[in-house]
Amino acid sequence: MSRVALVGASMTEFGDRDAWVRELLAEAGDAALADAGVDPNDLDHLYVSNMASGEFEGQTGVPNALAHDLGAIGAYTQRVDQTSASGGAGVYAAWQSVASGASDLTLLVGGEKMTHETTANATDVIASLTHPVEYKHGVTLPSFAGLTARKYLDEYDAPRESLAKVAVKNHENGLDNPHAQFRKEVDVETVMDSPIVADPLRLYDFCPITDGSAALLFCPEEVASEYTDDYVVVEGIGGATDTHVVHEREDPTTMQGVVDSSDQAYEMAGLGPDDVDVAELHDMFTILEFLQSEDLGFFEKGEGWKAVEEGVTDRDGDLPINTSGGLKSKGHPLGASGVAQVYELYKQLLGDAGARQVDCEVGLACNVGGFGNCVTTTVLSNDV
Amino acid sequence: MSRVALVGASMTEFGDRDAWVRELLAEAGDAALADAGVDPNDLDHLYVSNMASGEFEGQTGVPNALAHDLGAIGAYTQRVDQTSASGGAGVYAAWQSVASGASDLTLLVGGEKMTHETTANATDVIASLTHPVEYKHGVTLPSFAGLTARKYLDEYDAPRESLAKVAVKNHENGLDNPHAQFRKEVDVETVMDSPIVADPLRLYDFCPITDGSAALLFCPEEVASEYTDDYVVVEGIGGATDTHVVHEREDPTTMQGVVDSSDQAYEMAGLGPDDVDVAELHDMFTILEFLQSEDLGFFEKGEGWKAVEEGVTDRDGDLPINTSGGLKSKGHPLGASGVAQVYELYKQLLGDAGARQVDCEVGLACNVGGFGNCVTTTVLSNDV
Repeated sequence: MSRVALVGASMTEFGDRDAWVRELLAEAGDAALADAGVDPNDLDHLYVSNMASGEFEGQTGVPNALAHDLGAIGAYTQRVDQTSASGGAGVYAAWQSVASGASDLTLLVGGEKMTHETTANATDVIASLTHPVEYKHGVTLPSFAGLTARKYLDEYDAPRESLAKVAVKNHENGLDNPHAQFRKEVDVETVMDSPIVADPLRLYDFCPITDGSAALLFCPEEVASEYTDDYVVVEGIGGATDTHVVHEREDPTTMQGVVDSSDQAYEMAGLGPDDVDVAELHDMFTILEFLQSEDLGFFEKGEGWKAVEEGVTDRDGDLPINTSGGLKSKGHPLGASGVAQVYELYKQLLGDAGARQVDCEVGLACNVGGFGNCVTTTVLSNDV
Repeated sequence: MSRVALVGASMTEFGDRDAWVRELLAEAGDAALADAGVDPNDLDHLYVSNMASGEFEGQTGVPNALAHDLGAIGAYTQRVDQTSASGGAGVYAAWQSVASGASDLTLLVGGEKMTHETTANATDVIASLTHPVEYKHGVTLPSFAGLTARKYLDEYDAPRESLAKVAVKNHENGLDNPHAQFRKEVDVETVMDSPIVADPLRLYDFCPITDGSAALLFCPEEVASEYTDDYVVVEGIGGATDTHVVHEREDPTTMQGVVDSSDQAYEMAGLGPDDVDVAELHDMFTILEFLQSEDLGFFEKGEGWKAVEEGVTDRDGDLPINTSGGLKSKGHPLGASGVAQVYELYKQLLGDAGARQVDCEVGLACNVGGFGNCVTTTVLSNDV
């Protein structure tokens, strides 16, 4: 099988956008087509990553509407939902569409419109993915994060400040990302003094509620040069679930879906964690960056916090993580986030990341749905 | 590339079910696994076709919940939504997962729980897939069907009774389907005397609101014999969109998505409409069976009604259509319908359709989302 190539990409400004999801999707879709100089009529498949346009806007059938808005009527369309990992699931679906031979040109657009909702409403829609018993007892994803952070700090003797340093690093990266929702520096004191949300986690440990979208254009590698001289390839990809009921996990500080999906991606790629030069992780909460950096094999269990303390994951460190600013500073429009992770790697691997540029040949994106309930991992390279 | 095989299938009773979608999905999923004697831990991928569990039940993240309920934690999961064609889109997604090499064993479960909603609420959720301008003016799918039926009858000089005969035929087939929602005979007079819904269409021209689910198990053909001696293969599959705005279509009696998706499926299969022995069409409204039977190439444009009048599409005719009872009598739980179409063909092609059995080697399923907005077509055979 030939490899699947990425020949175009885009993302919109993330933040509080005065536009509905349909407009946001069209904005990113148009830009990705323009990036590769592709006629929308040439699209075979069009996938939309979106968790909840029906719940948030009372609008269903968004993929068909997007085909209309892009001028791509005829192309096969479908919505991909895997809650907060809908974007990564869309990358997997788009990859499958090309790798199976069903499509020679697939556009994936991920997006969500959320800021018109109250935080309580948005959190409630997201929390409806949890087990009904958990949900009935008022459990939300932030409360899981608080419990897990407490256990991690205790078990691995990590200082509370190490979590704050994830936020500080990612905000610093976001400063250089023109698409990021928050472009402001924060220091450890600001994080430590912010209001408690789910003890020990505070306001600055959490990603915001965000509007935005991102898009990627996939084709078989053997035709990539028809669209552009500069492309990247998907070296490996995988997806896996962890228990639906979080308290059934043997060790809540391990996300088995991250372990399993990255094992699949590494195996397909013929690469390992040591080969990865840059990574976009799902830092919906600061604690998640520690867990993923360990479960992906970058660092030993319980050592992820030290890597942050020592600057290993800074832009000038050995393994820069979340050069985009991550969900923390860039924002987290559910269906867009996993797509925007790959957008950042695309830019990095092509050397087009501007002030955020790091030295890299292999990038990895890890997108997490629920509290690790479902995960996709994608490994990309510029070895073409 | 090896062909993709179907090695197990199931469907639940369709109707007014005292169970939530999660329970319905687990019921069909368990039964399909049992049908093939498969251990849920052996599943690589698990797809869920569902349009609106969030809107109908306030429940998201259903695929991960289903992995839990089936005992398949670890398997990659994702929800597939393409409105009323979510089932067919799920078949396409599951096919791609195997054909791409990403999965060696994929379970697809489609389901919807709707009967707890009022007809008005359910219709409103479904109508939210239409163009906002159409939606704002009160257009729903039944009203499009009425307008199209009027045009068809006028343009092709078809008697109103010919539409009624679709309902009569499909109800007769449903009598022999133990899973069907309506197991009662109707005659032309009953249809013609039923209340007007969208002139000229009457109550008995419409499918009901239904709860239910169905499941299919896919693997590469070269390993199919590990699971069963009796399997069927996907010979061809395709998907396409038509305009999002219905009034932009040149001829509202042609569904371009049906034409395009079946062209793709026939080409992949190396077969044509004349090779098809049995078909499951999307008779959400009686008029749709005419349109699809023409757009799939079974009959000339404007001749579909004659085929019904002449008994060609009866169970003892040359091309039996909707031997299952169709959406009309079997019911239409959105995400389940496209999956249940393939379930019927699986049974027919294996010679396991009991009283409904017809003589067949090639079957075709056509699943339609919206008012032809998005369509998938699947061609299956027992030539193994």
